Amino acid sequence: MDAVKRNNVKVIGKGEKPMLFAHGYGCDQNMWRFITPAFEEDYKIVLFDHIGFGSSDISEYNKERYASLHGYAEDVLKICHELELQDVVFVGHSVSAMIGVLAATKEPERFSKLILVSPSPSFINEGDYIGGFNREDIEGLLSSLDSDYLGWSNTIAPVIMGNPDKPELGQELAQSFCSSNEEVARDFAHVTFLSDHKKDLAKVKVPTLILQCSEDAIAPLTVGEYTSKSIAGSQLVVLEATGHCPNLSAPEETIAAIKSFL
Amino acid sequence: MDAVKRNNVKVIGKGEKPMLFAHGYGCDQNMWRFITPAFEEDYKIVLFDHIGFGSSDISEYNKERYASLHGYAEDVLKICHELELQDVVFVGHSVSAMIGVLAATKEPERFSKLILVSPSPSFINEGDYIGGFNREDIEGLLSSLDSDYLGWSNTIAPVIMGNPDKPELGQELAQSFCSSNEEVARDFAHVTFLSDHKKDLAKVKVPTLILQCSEDAIAPLTVGEYTSKSIAGSQLVVLEATGHCPNLSAPEETIAAIKSFL
Repeated sequence: MDAVKRNNVKVIGKGEKPMLFAHGYGCDQNMWRFITPAFEEDYKIVLFDHIGFGSSDISEYNKERYASLHGYAEDVLKICHELELQDVVFVGHSVSAMIGVLAATKEPERFSKLILVSPSPSFINEGDYIGGFNREDIEGLLSSLDSDYLGWSNTIAPVIMGNPDKPELGQELAQSFCSSNEEVARDFAHVTFLSDHKKDLAKVKVPTLILQCSEDAIAPLTVGEYTSKSIAGSQLVVLEATGHCPNLSAPEETIAAIKSFL
Repeated sequence: MDAVKRNNVKVIGKGEKPMLFAHGYGCDQNMWRFITPAFEEDYKIVLFDHIGFGSSDISEYNKERYASLHGYAEDVLKICHELELQDVVFVGHSVSAMIGVLAATKEPERFSKLILVSPSPSFINEGDYIGGFNREDIEGLLSSLDSDYLGWSNTIAPVIMGNPDKPELGQELAQSFCSSNEEVARDFAHVTFLSDHKKDLAKVKVPTLILQCSEDAIAPLTVGEYTSKSIAGSQLVVLEATGHCPNLSAPEETIAAIKSFL
């Protein structure tokens, strides 16, 4: 099946240069709606949904393929091949930031720039690395997810969003988590929270921008700093925005940072 | 009616020196359950519920009395008078930190120490002061609360709690918000989020400890720093703990910081 159909790929914008947006856990391409209008004039904007999310073809879901982020990175490359995208500006949020890292490591010549929004190469503290959680914390989070997915989603999504002054955003994210296929969402949560791609960061040879929020309940500042230190020549911008989803909670600041980098 | 009854006052512990614990918005004395055991050997521990919360006598609620935090501070003093407490170590969480500031300003000789856990003298940015929110943000938060209290509680409480690895804590707080009397909770939320007690901080003459979490969705680090700068001779401890309720999410670190101060 072609990638355009299986990943519900949409192409908009008036430009030639491709800008590919990859959404984070439990979401779909709709989460970029406040960001893309600012780039429609100058870029060919490519949006898609990860398999199992949004309007992707869930029959294409395959536990083995998606048992690691490499399967998702393969999908990104498949979209690039099929649309014959070159010099891609890749914008990935949260777990999709790491998916972009893996794709750009596999085919560096395909990408001109990486923009990593709230990335985390690993959520788990290890040695000097402060990911924000102990292994038992993450195991507790996943066991709570396994025992009550809807309850977990309604509790966690607003925490991930932060920004208590805009409760509608946390509710939107909870709604998005809850409407995901439960089996796929569970698997993806396990891959998201247990993957460790710290060692892959050094392999990135593409100019990279890292956008880190100043207060993020799941990716502390130390994570943005580590990511930036590990990708040679990358640029770290610490946003005034708080929470984990500046693309939704602080689109203007996010757009300005991306434009300034491009 | 006596304060012991109206505020559901409980006295525990084997010591003589009184340690009075005041709970934050939408909670009750139960939120201190991980902290008090560490002080039971050496202190007389006094716990209570604010009027309208926990097992307080809700018939004592009075819109005029509780239209500002001064009404709540009067209750704290009434408890001290009735139990004849002297040299009180006052421990207040969140909005109750400011209630303690007001009580200690009114009767400084009554208190030996103030311990302010996640305090905020004002949530609203003003001039150089960074409270974390614009006025419109707070107005939006309160209008969302007014239109759907249960929905608001379920969304906001986990954000306030943070600590996504322990979703049961966010759920407990949401449950506590939801089980509060709605009218009282709305009024108290308005008072909590709109009060400005920045100018009262300088009036505090009691040795004060400020416990600030390193990532708090409603009280950023700037707020702890401002509070500390404004209370002469106070001590600021920035906890490794994240979220707004270290008494629930990081009791050991909270106890250690309090013990070291005492």
